[in-house]
Amino acid sequence: MRGHKVTSFDVARRAGVSRAAVSRTFTPNASVSPETREKVIKAAKELGYRVNYLARSLINRRSDFVGVVAAGMDNPFRAMQIEQITKSLVRRNFRPILLPADQGESADHVMNQLLHYNVSGVLVTSDAPPTALCAEFAAAGVPIVLINKADTIPSVDRVISDNAAAGRLAATTLVEAGARRLAVVAAAAPSYTARCRQQAFVSACYSMQVEARVISVAVNDYDHGVAAAERLEGADGVFCVNDYMACGLIDGLRRKGNGAAEAIRVIGHDDIPQAAWSAYELTTIRQPSDLQAEQAINLLVSRMDEPSTPERVETTPVTLVRRRTA
Amino acid sequence: MRGHKVTSFDVARRAGVSRAAVSRTFTPNASVSPETREKVIKAAKELGYRVNYLARSLINRRSDFVGVVAAGMDNPFRAMQIEQITKSLVRRNFRPILLPADQGESADHVMNQLLHYNVSGVLVTSDAPPTALCAEFAAAGVPIVLINKADTIPSVDRVISDNAAAGRLAATTLVEAGARRLAVVAAAAPSYTARCRQQAFVSACYSMQVEARVISVAVNDYDHGVAAAERLEGADGVFCVNDYMACGLIDGLRRKGNGAAEAIRVIGHDDIPQAAWSAYELTTIRQPSDLQAEQAINLLVSRMDEPSTPERVETTPVTLVRRRTA
Repeated sequence: MRGHKVTSFDVARRAGVSRAAVSRTFTPNASVSPETREKVIKAAKELGYRVNYLARSLINRRSDFVGVVAAGMDNPFRAMQIEQITKSLVRRNFRPILLPADQGESADHVMNQLLHYNVSGVLVTSDAPPTALCAEFAAAGVPIVLINKADTIPSVDRVISDNAAAGRLAATTLVEAGARRLAVVAAAAPSYTARCRQQAFVSACYSMQVEARVISVAVNDYDHGVAAAERLEGADGVFCVNDYMACGLIDGLRRKGNGAAEAIRVIGHDDIPQAAWSAYELTTIRQPSDLQAEQAINLLVSRMDEPSTPERVETTPVTLVRRRTA
Repeated sequence: MRGHKVTSFDVARRAGVSRAAVSRTFTPNASVSPETREKVIKAAKELGYRVNYLARSLINRRSDFVGVVAAGMDNPFRAMQIEQITKSLVRRNFRPILLPADQGESADHVMNQLLHYNVSGVLVTSDAPPTALCAEFAAAGVPIVLINKADTIPSVDRVISDNAAAGRLAATTLVEAGARRLAVVAAAAPSYTARCRQQAFVSACYSMQVEARVISVAVNDYDHGVAAAERLEGADGVFCVNDYMACGLIDGLRRKGNGAAEAIRVIGHDDIPQAAWSAYELTTIRQPSDLQAEQAINLLVSRMDEPSTPERVETTPVTLVRRRTA
């Protein structure tokens, strides 16, 4: 076969199947029997045949590429989230283009470049990038789904964790564990979900006629958790809006000594692997990143098929995971 | 401008520059003055001009896409590594396509698909995928760089952490800290680097005439670290081939009580964020994931330019980070 470009016709002939069968074998999600598929793949391999997916994307005006915009992968929850999203995308025959977008400036640049790549959709995780940019994507007809973001943008779907339930669950769990002087540790900005969880927590405390103090930090991370341990004077129950920060808070309380860590009940949010580590055994509210990834991709796919559907919001349910700290 | 497709000619006219200047503005790494770039980008935005990068990839026979094959992102080091690699790629105007490849079967499938996408290169992190597949890529003329993998494959470059230095450093650090009955915890397979570190550790102990026991586990992860704590009878110094496992080992020792955790010096490898957490304060050997990402991408780019260079191996230096555990 040397010297001439191998075509689907060559593959069909060698495999003893129709040309349409070859085409279906290389079309994601197209129907083809396992036997035919096997014959075609064997023949294609023997001949060194390659489908030109890029050319096909140009013809279809839609590629298999989906942009995934991620920020803050130092938080183990974000790492889990990216792993789940990329796995789900690959399982559905999409190719995830991963775009780290920590700095505001570079996020703009990167998102703008994505527009040039005929991506068939974009998934944006929390904290990045700016609303204006997302609106630009939507206006350009690129389906876009935001995960855990506040902004209501025409034609932009969202998946949001059930933050109201999480805040309530955190408050009732701490009160049931015997705490009466509660506190919540959360960054005021930019995390939308953190703010929602905090508000739900405070209003649940109000309903139960239990004191709730808000301790504001700059960032919801480990180091700010450690520092927040110094500001808990008098509290006997604390809700950290993510586990990453809760691990820091527990380490900070232990460093203080005098039984500070034992005197305060702690509850986190997310259920990162470290929450189950025996150094922490953190009681927490599980945010199922696998289910959330599926919800987001379902919304994205359905918007590709029906671009003019009004924007939708789906809620990811949360559940309590009881461990040692509350 | 409605009703007709905006071309680079339209942009050049509006910006008052040459058509070549427009082309250069949208070519990664091409030389163009900041003023010209700014004018072109402004005009392109006003006109809604989009470079068709996919079409350009077809013409150039080389795309901006680089496949990144990753496994085991539950290990925080892997999450850091992926973040560093994708950031470095984006900084150099490549688009990282992330491919999670935990199960052997799906890794083959995914890598095979990559071949169809005109990727300009592939970066493979440890443990995935099989050698045969990497050789197939190389044979197909796709530049490929392996990070922390053993296999010598014609035309395939590799970056490998200085495992010999790491093993030696771990042994001498434990001995200097007063330990005399040493042990190393490592999985026998599939991690090449784990094996190298273990061997270097054992031979350094031999040179120092210090006892060294090998404790084999199935996987280098947290849970196996916890379990390994039960098999340290008599040891007073332990090297865990990664921090992820060392955190488990420390938690396992603490759970045993009777001062088991205080009686044994522990050293890890990688310097994951958790190693610095005050629950651990783990002495460890830092593997700089940022530098390693740069090394791998440099090799990849130079192979794109000179495909017939003999395969090269670059070493990533490691350094000791002293904390509380040794």
